[in-house]
Amino acid sequence: MKKVYNFSAGPSMLPNEVLARAREELTNYCGTGMSVMEIAPGSEEFEKIISEATELLRSLLSIPPSYKIFFVGGGAEAQYSAVPLNLMSDHKCADYVITGQSAKSAELEAKKYGDIAIAATSAGATTPYSTIPDMKRSHFRPDADYVHITYASRIYGTKYNYIPDTGSIPLVADMSAFLLSEPIDISKFTLVYAGVEENIAPSGMTIVIVRDEYVGRARRDTPNTLNYKWIKENGTSTSSEPIWNIYMAKLVFEWIKSVGGLEQIKRRNERKASLLYDYLDSQSYYTAPVDKKCRSMMNVVFVTGDSALDRKFAKEAREEGLVNLEGHSSIGGMRASIYNAMPYEGVERLVDFMRRFAQENPKLDG
Amino acid sequence: MKKVYNFSAGPSMLPNEVLARAREELTNYCGTGMSVMEIAPGSEEFEKIISEATELLRSLLSIPPSYKIFFVGGGAEAQYSAVPLNLMSDHKCADYVITGQSAKSAELEAKKYGDIAIAATSAGATTPYSTIPDMKRSHFRPDADYVHITYASRIYGTKYNYIPDTGSIPLVADMSAFLLSEPIDISKFTLVYAGVEENIAPSGMTIVIVRDEYVGRARRDTPNTLNYKWIKENGTSTSSEPIWNIYMAKLVFEWIKSVGGLEQIKRRNERKASLLYDYLDSQSYYTAPVDKKCRSMMNVVFVTGDSALDRKFAKEAREEGLVNLEGHSSIGGMRASIYNAMPYEGVERLVDFMRRFAQENPKLDG
Repeated sequence: MKKVYNFSAGPSMLPNEVLARAREELTNYCGTGMSVMEIAPGSEEFEKIISEATELLRSLLSIPPSYKIFFVGGGAEAQYSAVPLNLMSDHKCADYVITGQSAKSAELEAKKYGDIAIAATSAGATTPYSTIPDMKRSHFRPDADYVHITYASRIYGTKYNYIPDTGSIPLVADMSAFLLSEPIDISKFTLVYAGVEENIAPSGMTIVIVRDEYVGRARRDTPNTLNYKWIKENGTSTSSEPIWNIYMAKLVFEWIKSVGGLEQIKRRNERKASLLYDYLDSQSYYTAPVDKKCRSMMNVVFVTGDSALDRKFAKEAREEGLVNLEGHSSIGGMRASIYNAMPYEGVERLVDFMRRFAQENPKLDG
Repeated sequence: MKKVYNFSAGPSMLPNEVLARAREELTNYCGTGMSVMEIAPGSEEFEKIISEATELLRSLLSIPPSYKIFFVGGGAEAQYSAVPLNLMSDHKCADYVITGQSAKSAELEAKKYGDIAIAATSAGATTPYSTIPDMKRSHFRPDADYVHITYASRIYGTKYNYIPDTGSIPLVADMSAFLLSEPIDISKFTLVYAGVEENIAPSGMTIVIVRDEYVGRARRDTPNTLNYKWIKENGTSTSSEPIWNIYMAKLVFEWIKSVGGLEQIKRRNERKASLLYDYLDSQSYYTAPVDKKCRSMMNVVFVTGDSALDRKFAKEAREEGLVNLEGHSSIGGMRASIYNAMPYEGVERLVDFMRRFAQENPKLDG
């Protein structure tokens, strides 16, 4: 089998050890004679997968007992609606920080349900969304029901380098493409959610971590499957629970634990990201547009400045087994997503290729 | 490996051939060097899985081109909300037929959004929900936006033996635990949905089949992920698409095609169900409460009439590798779910066990 390094932004690489284990157990899980995909809700094995996944996640992120953890079928977009439906008071007002397309989509969705203000935006940066706004309490309306931020942008390659101080206003974060890439203090947030497809598990599931006291406040007309109270009471151990995704997430959590937890994962990710960013900063053929202080360790965005060359880059990289390096369709260029499962050698191979490509393809104006 | 026959109502058995293929391809899909769980949205392989799954389903069920087919992340419960949100006019009125708990849950959810009438119910049958009401056009309000039925009950073991004539009122059916067990004329329905976990694929996904002209009518405040127009425009080829479930569904569709399509699947299912029902009808130790004319071929419900014996039955059956024969917790007794993937030999083994159990456990009053 050809060795392939997959730089896709999501669905993306899963650890080899996890895939091997999934394969091994696929037709006979724990001696049941059944696949995980076949086990019955309510059975010992089914319940154990969910409870172990929950407790592993709680332990990895040091999530306080006052938070509920839900594994919800479907993508993170559902939470764009669930957040306002569950957290808005009668008064219906929330503040959003716009740092990319996902943040914008979340804001547009919330507007269906209340009075939404944009507390800050990085749309106007020299390169749009290439930075994260500095925010103080004064940016937020004191009567806002919550402040919503998008902790990392997998399209623009940014990441918050601080947790905004919202005072007594609940802070909500979409942590897709960030969660489990390093430690984070969950207790600073009222609600955190993340699509699993970037760094955690096969696509089609979202992790929701929410303070207990915010479960049970949804608007009366909230669809059940978006109502955290309904999810708490009905959402596990039902037949439609995405048990395969939860199982895969559990294997990934075990893998993270086995390599030393999130501190060690952070060190690995820093080492990989430094290799790539240090190279980018050492030359002028490629440009990394993101503000250095808010660079994501997960999604590294760069361009040659010539869209034809960018396309050639992605094509030739693919031929060498470095796949899915195309930037998001909305901005072009290149994007190397180097999530937890990407080995250091993958980034080494990428940097080698980048050097070679730059030598072999001099720019006309260079 | 112990041979196990899994009678779970869902998640349930998948065909051995499908699991073997999934295992074989798990770490290297079609020579990509990647798992299906890792391939990028927008890539040739990703798009092909979705388009092939869609066309296979269209072909198996002879779904007219005027219907859209969606694979939606999450369970069928989300459609309890999506149906009223998408199909209700300003006037907001719909009729529901109550034939079990799922039907009741769908009705309660719809009540959040409009004026709901119960057109008919089988709750009052001698054994509640053991039959399907006979309905004529006169049962439905002429101004109803739609009529909602639950085509099969996996808890009570019933199935419609006719398609209700609703005249010009759109007919909507929850076909969970029925879809793909036999041919059905989709053109008689405006909208059909089904959780995949019963007969199609791993849990965590729902299939929605909807007439094109009903896509784009949702209420303005409909959450995006429940809005068929949004799903049509954004719901495929996004990163959160449940690609593994779609892939597994595609393998199941291919398997159905390979054994001869739905006509052949129906013959197989009739043969299996007859074996079990004929035995039930030939003796008096076990009782099958469901009205003969609306017996499901998928979920066969029976009781000994003694709940302690029922529990003993399920326990001893499990020890013989006949697992998950417990009835739904709300009604007790036994339930043998014999979906497409259950081989004839599994039902033979069950009937043998039933005979033996009846001999070895005479009833005190018998």
